Amino acid sequence: MARPPRDTKRAPSGERKVFRRRQEILDVAARIFYEKGYDATSTRDIAEAAGLLKGSLYYYVETKEDFLFEIIRTSHEGALATLERVRLFEGDVLQKLACLVREHLAYFVQNLVTTSVYFREFRVLSPERRAIIAAEGDAYLEFVRSLLFAGQRDGVIAPEIDVRLVSIGLVGMLNSAWLWYQPGGARSTDEIADEFVKVIVAGVASNGAFDTAGSASKLRSAAVERPVAALPRQD
Amino acid sequence: MARPPRDTKRAPSGERKVFRRRQEILDVAARIFYEKGYDATSTRDIAEAAGLLKGSLYYYVETKEDFLFEIIRTSHEGALATLERVRLFEGDVLQKLACLVREHLAYFVQNLVTTSVYFREFRVLSPERRAIIAAEGDAYLEFVRSLLFAGQRDGVIAPEIDVRLVSIGLVGMLNSAWLWYQPGGARSTDEIADEFVKVIVAGVASNGAFDTAGSASKLRSAAVERPVAALPRQD
Repeated sequence: MARPPRDTKRAPSGERKVFRRRQEILDVAARIFYEKGYDATSTRDIAEAAGLLKGSLYYYVETKEDFLFEIIRTSHEGALATLERVRLFEGDVLQKLACLVREHLAYFVQNLVTTSVYFREFRVLSPERRAIIAAEGDAYLEFVRSLLFAGQRDGVIAPEIDVRLVSIGLVGMLNSAWLWYQPGGARSTDEIADEFVKVIVAGVASNGAFDTAGSASKLRSAAVERPVAALPRQD
Repeated sequence: MARPPRDTKRAPSGERKVFRRRQEILDVAARIFYEKGYDATSTRDIAEAAGLLKGSLYYYVETKEDFLFEIIRTSHEGALATLERVRLFEGDVLQKLACLVREHLAYFVQNLVTTSVYFREFRVLSPERRAIIAAEGDAYLEFVRSLLFAGQRDGVIAPEIDVRLVSIGLVGMLNSAWLWYQPGGARSTDEIADEFVKVIVAGVASNGAFDTAGSASKLRSAAVERPVAALPRQD
């Protein structure tokens, strides 16, 4: 499949324009998949919504599955990119974990359409493409695992928890946002993140971490204090 | 929509037979929706897989959406029924919560096909039917909330957590099983449940609960001890 360059800053302006237009068309496709479902959407639907003739669409993307793959891959790569901010966040593992919870929820909420399309339509992809996406999911999970293992070595994460299974549960809790998050709901993403941080940090903290904080409630309240982030948010 | 009686024990044997056959056909339909997706499945596919002529299918269920609705409703009602065991479980709120985690995961794992169809295809239902299903989901969430509120009154659940938001996160963590659970995987459902129980119980426990247990690790280890269930499992 033909792919315009990702690094648009270095690309000549013609390529940049194609890249931007292609991204617009992917956004349109994601919205239609989200509203109608992948199987019920035709490439004609996408072309019409994007204001293109069906033939012109193929200049950007070749098949309907290509759209889905690009949407899902872009969504996944965006989630992986948020980990860079967690990595650079200055603090101990519990603080980094709190940062990860915030970044993950913020990303999901800002990309609700594409993340919903991902969870709902993943099975439609060819086995080869599913494998590519699954590898990206594994990379995310592997980051969470490494973080928790590092915390066990540092003594802030409980040695009695099974890091492999717990990581899956925590990521599952964060991922579930696509099912229940209501844009414009009564609670802000920060309020939701605070509550998740309290439960997740106390859920995995070691005896030592509780002792240092003084009590469970003090540990939770320290966890929701927001230190200055190492990198500015790219909203 | 015509519905055979639910209370099959009291129904005459002819009705029982229709009910059983109907349930078999719903299971077949759920399996095909799971494998092919709802939109890509025809009622002819279901009839063929169930060994029926398409016309005979309508003796049991009228439209393709009826199948989906019945599958999702049955799945939801089953999940709600597990709450009865939690209600009757003898123990404090933290023990009841541990019981709920086990019951929820066990139910999901045993009903992976129908729960997956539910999460993936819910949006296809008519608004009226979505409202019926959403009300059942709310009833489940309401149970979890009541449990946590009761724990706050009893002093075992942290007063500093927002029960409404935390309930959503916990149910989301448990529900995420449909995305990652691998039948026949290396870990048993009990092992997975143990890890989730440790994190969830420590995540929401009050200072008093930690003090009574002696430490976070003792609280976690008490939470995964299995007292005798009040009701036998209906596996």
